[in-house]
Amino acid sequence: MSQEDAITVADLGEFGLIAAIRAVLPPDPPGVLGIGDDGAVLPAPDGRVVASTDLLVEGRHFRRDWSAAVDIGVKAAAQNMADIAAMGAVPTALLFGLAVPGDLDVAWVLDVARGLAAECSRAGALIAGGDVTSSDSAMLAITALGGLAGRDPVTRAGARPGDVLAISGPVGLSAAGLALLQSGLAALPAAAEPQLLRLVAAHQRPQPDYAAGPLAAAAGATSMIDVSDGLVADLGHIAEASGVRLEVRSASLPGIGALEPAAVRLGTDWRTWALAGGEDHALAATFPEADMLPRGWTMIGGAGPGAGVLVDSEPWHGQAGWDHFRGTDIFRD
Amino acid sequence: MSQEDAITVADLGEFGLIAAIRAVLPPDPPGVLGIGDDGAVLPAPDGRVVASTDLLVEGRHFRRDWSAAVDIGVKAAAQNMADIAAMGAVPTALLFGLAVPGDLDVAWVLDVARGLAAECSRAGALIAGGDVTSSDSAMLAITALGGLAGRDPVTRAGARPGDVLAISGPVGLSAAGLALLQSGLAALPAAAEPQLLRLVAAHQRPQPDYAAGPLAAAAGATSMIDVSDGLVADLGHIAEASGVRLEVRSASLPGIGALEPAAVRLGTDWRTWALAGGEDHALAATFPEADMLPRGWTMIGGAGPGAGVLVDSEPWHGQAGWDHFRGTDIFRD
Repeated sequence: MSQEDAITVADLGEFGLIAAIRAVLPPDPPGVLGIGDDGAVLPAPDGRVVASTDLLVEGRHFRRDWSAAVDIGVKAAAQNMADIAAMGAVPTALLFGLAVPGDLDVAWVLDVARGLAAECSRAGALIAGGDVTSSDSAMLAITALGGLAGRDPVTRAGARPGDVLAISGPVGLSAAGLALLQSGLAALPAAAEPQLLRLVAAHQRPQPDYAAGPLAAAAGATSMIDVSDGLVADLGHIAEASGVRLEVRSASLPGIGALEPAAVRLGTDWRTWALAGGEDHALAATFPEADMLPRGWTMIGGAGPGAGVLVDSEPWHGQAGWDHFRGTDIFRD
Repeated sequence: MSQEDAITVADLGEFGLIAAIRAVLPPDPPGVLGIGDDGAVLPAPDGRVVASTDLLVEGRHFRRDWSAAVDIGVKAAAQNMADIAAMGAVPTALLFGLAVPGDLDVAWVLDVARGLAAECSRAGALIAGGDVTSSDSAMLAITALGGLAGRDPVTRAGARPGDVLAISGPVGLSAAGLALLQSGLAALPAAAEPQLLRLVAAHQRPQPDYAAGPLAAAAGATSMIDVSDGLVADLGHIAEASGVRLEVRSASLPGIGALEPAAVRLGTDWRTWALAGGEDHALAATFPEADMLPRGWTMIGGAGPGAGVLVDSEPWHGQAGWDHFRGTDIFRD
C-alpha cells in the first residue's frame, strides 16, 4: 500500500484534493487557460464548439469492486468523447465534476483522474476544468467539447431511403463482459481464457475509435450516432429522427465471433449482447453509397422507406434499450 | 395538486422524462443544434470558448425542503454562469446533468428545468444539452459556456500593487438567509419582515449581475473572481495567483445595511456573513485606477505588495472559506 492509499479525501480537504488532482494531470498546452481559474478558455478555431454532457453514478454505471478507478476514469471520458465523435467532431477538451464521500481514499480519486487524463491523451483532448464536492456515493459528471474543423455536424436526422448502414467497430463485447462479471465467471479460472478476458476488458475500459467519426463525416455520412444504449435502440433514434426504416443483417456485425464462446459458456444468445448491449461506443452511420465507407467501417444493412428497425428482416423482440429509471440489475451509460 | 405531481420519474422513464424536460425548455435559436442529438453545436464567434463546470448535491448544496425546485434550478444555473462572467465573458449556453431517484415527482424535475431555463433566459444563454439518470439522492451537474467577444479573459493572476479592489454587488446576503433558515426563524412570523425575507430570497435564488463581468473586462480589470466560497477566501485566490496582498475595508462593502437586522435578531456578527459567506455570486476585481470602475462596481479596498488578505488592516480571524469535505452544518456551492 502506497502512502497515497492512507489518506482520505476529507484528510486532504477540497483545495488539497484539487491540487493533488492537478498534479496528476498534464500541464496546459500553449494557448489554453485550463484548470485553476473560474473558467477555462479554449480554442474553437472554426467558430463553433460541439458539447456533450453525461453523468456516471456509482452502483448504476460503475461498481468500485468491478472496475479499477483508472478504468472508471477511462470509461467516463470515453463515453462522452464518443458522443463528440458521433457528431463528426474531434474531441478537444473535457471538464469533469467529481462527487465523492469524504472517507474515500485519495488514491481512488487520483486514479480516476489518471484514467480521464489517459483517455483524453489517447483522443488528443485536454482536461480543461473540474469541480470536486462531497456526496454519499461517488458520481462523475463529464462534459466533452470538440471541434468540427469546418465540416457540417452529422446529426441523427439525415438518413435517407437507399442509404447503406455501417458501423465503426464491434458491438456487444462490453455487454458480454458485464454478463461474465455478473455471472461470477470472470472471477473463476475459466475467465483466464483470453477470449473471455478480452470481453471483460471491453466492459471495464472501452476504447472508442474517435477518428471514425470525423472520417465518416468527411466521407459524406448522412447520419451518425454513438451506440451507447444498444444498437437497435440507438438505430431507432436515427430511424425516428430521419423518418426512415433501418435494416440490420446480424451476420454482418463485426466482432461477433468474439461473443460466441462467452454465449456458449453462459447458455445465452450473443445476439442480445450485439443488438441490445451498449457501452462499446462504436459509431453507427448511414452513407449514400457502400463505396463511400471509410476504412474501419463495416456495412451492416441499409435504410429504406418506413419507420423503426428490422433485424434480419424481422422486428427485434429481444431485450430493448436501456432505461435508467426502469432497469435494476445491470449497469449502463 | 396538478396531474404532473402524481407522476414519478420512474413512471415516465428516461426517454419520457427527456421529452417532458424538452417540452418546458424554449426552442433552439437559429444556428444552434441543441438538445436531441449526441452533442450540441454552438457558435463560438471569436474562435474561443469559455467553459466552467459545477456539481450541486442534495443535502450539501440544496435541500428540497428549504428551496423550491425552480429556485434550485435558478441557483445551479446562476453559480455556473457567474463563473463565466468572472472571466469577463458573456454566458452563451448551459448543459446540465440531472441524477434523481426514480420515485421523485416528475414535477420536481420539470421545475428544476424551468428554473435553469429562466436563469439562462435572464443571462441571454440557451440550454444546449443534458443527461438524466437515476441515483439515490438528487444531484445536478452544470456546465456553462461563454464567449469573450474578442476580449482577453480576466484571470485571477493579473492584480498588481497599487490596483484598487472593487466588487460588483452585495456579499453576505445569502449567508444571512441561510442562517435564518437554519435558525428556524425564517419559518416564524418574525420572518415576515421584508428585510429578513429578502435575505432568505437571496439564499434561495441568487441573481448575479452577469453583465458586470464583461463590463469590468472592457474597463480594464486586471483580475477577477466569482465570490462563491466567501469574500476573504476568494480574494485569497487572487492574492495568491497574482502575488499581491489585498486589503478590504469592511465598511465599504455594499449592502451591509441589509445584514444588520438579521445579525441583531440572531445575535451574531454581520461581518462573518459578508466576509466568509458565499453564494451571492458578486464578482470581485482589481482595476489600475479608481476612476476606471464601471457602473455597478464599488471600491472596497486595494492591492499592495505582499501576500494574503487583510480586513480593516488586520488578518481575518473569523470563519474561513468553505471546504466541501470539512464542513458539516451548512450548505454551499
